[in-house]
Amino acid sequence: MIIEGGIAMLLETIQGPAALRKLSLTALTQLAQEIRTVLLQKLSITGGHTGPNLGVVELTIALHTVFETPIDQLIFDVSHQAYVHKMLTGRAQAFIDPAHYADVSGFTDPQESLYDLFAVGHTSTSLALASGVAKARDLQAEHYNVVAVIGDGALSGGLAYEGLNNIVAQGTNTIVIVNDNERSIAENHGGLYGNLQALRVTQGQAPNNFFKALGFDYHYLEAGNDLAALIPALQQIKDTPRPVLLHVHTQKGKGYALAEQQPEKFHHGGPFDLATGAALAPKPALTYSSLTADFMLQKMAQDPKVVALNAGAPMLLFTPAQRRQAGAQFVDVGIAEQQAATMTTGLARNGAKPVWAVLSSFMQRSFDQISHDLALNDLPGTILVYGASVHGKNEQSHLGIFDIPFLSHIPNLIYLAPTTQHEYLAMLDWAIDQTGHPVAIRVPVGPVIAGPIDETDYQAGLKNQITQQGTQVALFGVGNFYQLAVAVAQALFDQAGIRPTVINPKLISDVDATILSQLPAQHQLVVTLEDGILSGGYGQMVASYLGNVPIKVQNYGLAKTFPDRFDAEQLLAAQGLTVPNIVQHILAAL
Amino acid sequence: MIIEGGIAMLLETIQGPAALRKLSLTALTQLAQEIRTVLLQKLSITGGHTGPNLGVVELTIALHTVFETPIDQLIFDVSHQAYVHKMLTGRAQAFIDPAHYADVSGFTDPQESLYDLFAVGHTSTSLALASGVAKARDLQAEHYNVVAVIGDGALSGGLAYEGLNNIVAQGTNTIVIVNDNERSIAENHGGLYGNLQALRVTQGQAPNNFFKALGFDYHYLEAGNDLAALIPALQQIKDTPRPVLLHVHTQKGKGYALAEQQPEKFHHGGPFDLATGAALAPKPALTYSSLTADFMLQKMAQDPKVVALNAGAPMLLFTPAQRRQAGAQFVDVGIAEQQAATMTTGLARNGAKPVWAVLSSFMQRSFDQISHDLALNDLPGTILVYGASVHGKNEQSHLGIFDIPFLSHIPNLIYLAPTTQHEYLAMLDWAIDQTGHPVAIRVPVGPVIAGPIDETDYQAGLKNQITQQGTQVALFGVGNFYQLAVAVAQALFDQAGIRPTVINPKLISDVDATILSQLPAQHQLVVTLEDGILSGGYGQMVASYLGNVPIKVQNYGLAKTFPDRFDAEQLLAAQGLTVPNIVQHILAAL
Repeated sequence: MIIEGGIAMLLETIQGPAALRKLSLTALTQLAQEIRTVLLQKLSITGGHTGPNLGVVELTIALHTVFETPIDQLIFDVSHQAYVHKMLTGRAQAFIDPAHYADVSGFTDPQESLYDLFAVGHTSTSLALASGVAKARDLQAEHYNVVAVIGDGALSGGLAYEGLNNIVAQGTNTIVIVNDNERSIAENHGGLYGNLQALRVTQGQAPNNFFKALGFDYHYLEAGNDLAALIPALQQIKDTPRPVLLHVHTQKGKGYALAEQQPEKFHHGGPFDLATGAALAPKPALTYSSLTADFMLQKMAQDPKVVALNAGAPMLLFTPAQRRQAGAQFVDVGIAEQQAATMTTGLARNGAKPVWAVLSSFMQRSFDQISHDLALNDLPGTILVYGASVHGKNEQSHLGIFDIPFLSHIPNLIYLAPTTQHEYLAMLDWAIDQTGHPVAIRVPVGPVIAGPIDETDYQAGLKNQITQQGTQVALFGVGNFYQLAVAVAQALFDQAGIRPTVINPKLISDVDATILSQLPAQHQLVVTLEDGILSGGYGQMVASYLGNVPIKVQNYGLAKTFPDRFDAEQLLAAQGLTVPNIVQHILAAL
Repeated sequence: MIIEGGIAMLLETIQGPAALRKLSLTALTQLAQEIRTVLLQKLSITGGHTGPNLGVVELTIALHTVFETPIDQLIFDVSHQAYVHKMLTGRAQAFIDPAHYADVSGFTDPQESLYDLFAVGHTSTSLALASGVAKARDLQAEHYNVVAVIGDGALSGGLAYEGLNNIVAQGTNTIVIVNDNERSIAENHGGLYGNLQALRVTQGQAPNNFFKALGFDYHYLEAGNDLAALIPALQQIKDTPRPVLLHVHTQKGKGYALAEQQPEKFHHGGPFDLATGAALAPKPALTYSSLTADFMLQKMAQDPKVVALNAGAPMLLFTPAQRRQAGAQFVDVGIAEQQAATMTTGLARNGAKPVWAVLSSFMQRSFDQISHDLALNDLPGTILVYGASVHGKNEQSHLGIFDIPFLSHIPNLIYLAPTTQHEYLAMLDWAIDQTGHPVAIRVPVGPVIAGPIDETDYQAGLKNQITQQGTQVALFGVGNFYQLAVAVAQALFDQAGIRPTVINPKLISDVDATILSQLPAQHQLVVTLEDGILSGGYGQMVASYLGNVPIKVQNYGLAKTFPDRFDAEQLLAAQGLTVPNIVQHILAAL
């Protein structure tokens, strides 16, 4: 116990939710204060989702006090707001004691606790999950409450709407808690947010209630950070025989003035100074994100048809000031990747030049919209795929290692993997202005490598680039792993005097048949290196193309797994993706 | 012109929508009658979406009369209801003259007409497309109407909700026409349908209007098959400066009593007898669908935890009578594949045994739900993938050739490709009762092949099956293409005296390392044959695995394209997927 003055004394006695049910309101209020202090202490050191968790301290205490968890089933949408839940379900030390900070993840995970129903990190899934949990309960003739907690932001995702519909159609006990922290007031993400605002202003009495229209018994609670109000409100809906929705107004960042005032900044971030709120590890001045923002603003100023889209993560692309500068040429569609991809299709069809920036992991929510809408119609929309690397996010629900198999096998779509700043911006510039096909670009991850000025005429054709002509071994270094190919080439020369051919494929949604056909003449082995899973990736296309000719092929990439909270270098080493190991295998094959 | 008595005289004079704008209401009414007659004449011979098109005859005439198409932009959701639109935009002969029946497709297609904005066949996309088209208009400071027509059924898809939100957020001219033909009255697919019904009953006056809650200017029109009512209603909302929604009540199958009475039967089907409505080509008694239905009903009767899910296509799995028999063990979530996949996750988590039946093409709408929800949580839900074959649907928007790369590279998920009835049912039986992982099964396509009783112990491990041990060549026949492998084997023997090894891989989401490692000893060539695209498929995994050993690999599969309205045998021949061509290539490699 490190917190000074024994400030978490009560929290330390809570081994599980049952303990809460014996506490007085006064004690629960003290507990909320302790939790808030512990949260701020930890998050200022480790970083995390500060605002969302400060906002649900009382709500989470009330839920575990009123409902008989773990018999009653509690599901958190996204689950980045589940820190308090973790503290109350036997994991408080992971927040109190710095020596245990790494014991728990930032999301719910059944491997961590029986109170966590699902491993989850993407938004808008909780209601569909709850409908399934409730249906399974009904099929087995069991009786308990199924409760889903979903934020107002997550309600912008279509899956949340599908879940609402199906919960009502099912008609049995399912309790939806809408945690409305006005996430979307600053930027109006769509029609629902007008309704939420009207409901808040009228204490739930506004005409044309979205949730009532869908058939829910609806309740509104303004005092979402007041245990004295929350507990009876939850008691009132507990054991309901039919679907009920409780709309709770909470304050994001509650209890920490800086987070209350700057909800976007404190939604998620790294370590910060508690007194000033300043980030302790300021961002580098030049990143691929900052390069993209600067380039896009310049491009948009030159051409009013260029428009930047994103789905509920505007910070991926622009700062608030940059968004204001972009004006009508910037669109945030809400946490609605399907909408982003299909809107991109409509924009491109009608003469605009759309550029949609999306994290690799979240792009997964729009496969059909990229395939059936954008690619089938073969329209020139551009997709910027961020965080696509083993060095991207390292949570199991946010991995950026699946996008090559995801995108590369969609007809008409061109997937490019740049290796440097200049190459990336040249590709982006070409992609925006070309009118032939949808183009996705795997934005490099890591420190910016300037590279030489890229004078490639992409309009003339998309070809692999031979950056070093050699013999015996041909190394294909895909995107971020081009530098690995260069390092392997150097090691082969140093260790064995071999000067291999080194190739930057650039285009990774198809092979360059011309170059591949020429390789067997002077090479015995082709090696592919890609920063993503091996299965279904670029290398396997190369292996297939060369299957019928007398040349060996070795494909290197990540295993088909969902690794969690890993150190990227350790993971690469464990999977043999190191220069010495690769060199050893190459030499063994010659 | 074949219609007797010159019944389509007026229709034949309509070269484009401009002609409509000069006609009197009486003439337009006559035109509607002609169109209905022509539709029935053609569809009774060719099959198609009879009910949906009969329902929108007047609506489509009114839209093209009131709006200045093609300057005003008209987008049809799914577009299976666009036959009338095609007749009015220069393509009437394709409906009037049997010699031209094949001239047009069953969906909108920009390659067919400038009046068709998008190639589309999946539901719920029109609103997001419209939001993009309207935004592009606004960026270019142009002025015209953007109109999207969407059915009540399509509103169950989450993307439709995302589109509604974004249209309102955008705030400029976009006109949404909800074509409410009560598609979902028989089976309540969720909360929205209660609201639509309340709005119909109250002539749009019900409290808690879903569309008003989202911020639309809302209008209701009961007389959706009456031109005299439709035309002024559309004139009233034309050139609106802000988002407007017109809720129109139409009758599915209008004007053909049999279709009015049996909306599900006449939603889509083959040729039928106009007098009796009887299908002219009755279904075979035994199909993989009928086998599945019988098996599932038996399994559900034995185990109340087994539950069958589908997304808006109940006929894929069960007849109406079978659905009644299944009772609470059958769930239709609406046209909401994301919900189906994530609900499957919730069901499996809480002890039920869910089986979700879905067409390969529509499964594409749930990649993230299969990956992030079902597979990340590694729960034992079963997915039955229907129509996964070059011999499945042959429209560019409904292809069943992309599911192997789609599913095979998702961690934890097991994808199986049975080759016979007994193998399929054995796999299904195992998948339902096992508790280890999510399992997808590629339901065979084509006439049922009984095959031998399958006594495989799938619980003991998923292995490739060597069905003929030979030498020189090893043939992997994936699922439906297993019979092709058998035919190639026979031809190799007949032509060259080679007795190849023949392998049924069964498991297609991973290679069988044991068998692959043994092959080089007695084989010079490995051949893979798969009924799906080559890119990212099973064969490329095999080629990669064998890349570093001295054995050749030839992968056969379909090209990475969106072929449209093809004859499967002709397409296979054009892409070299015939026994003679494959044998020739094999012999050349030995």
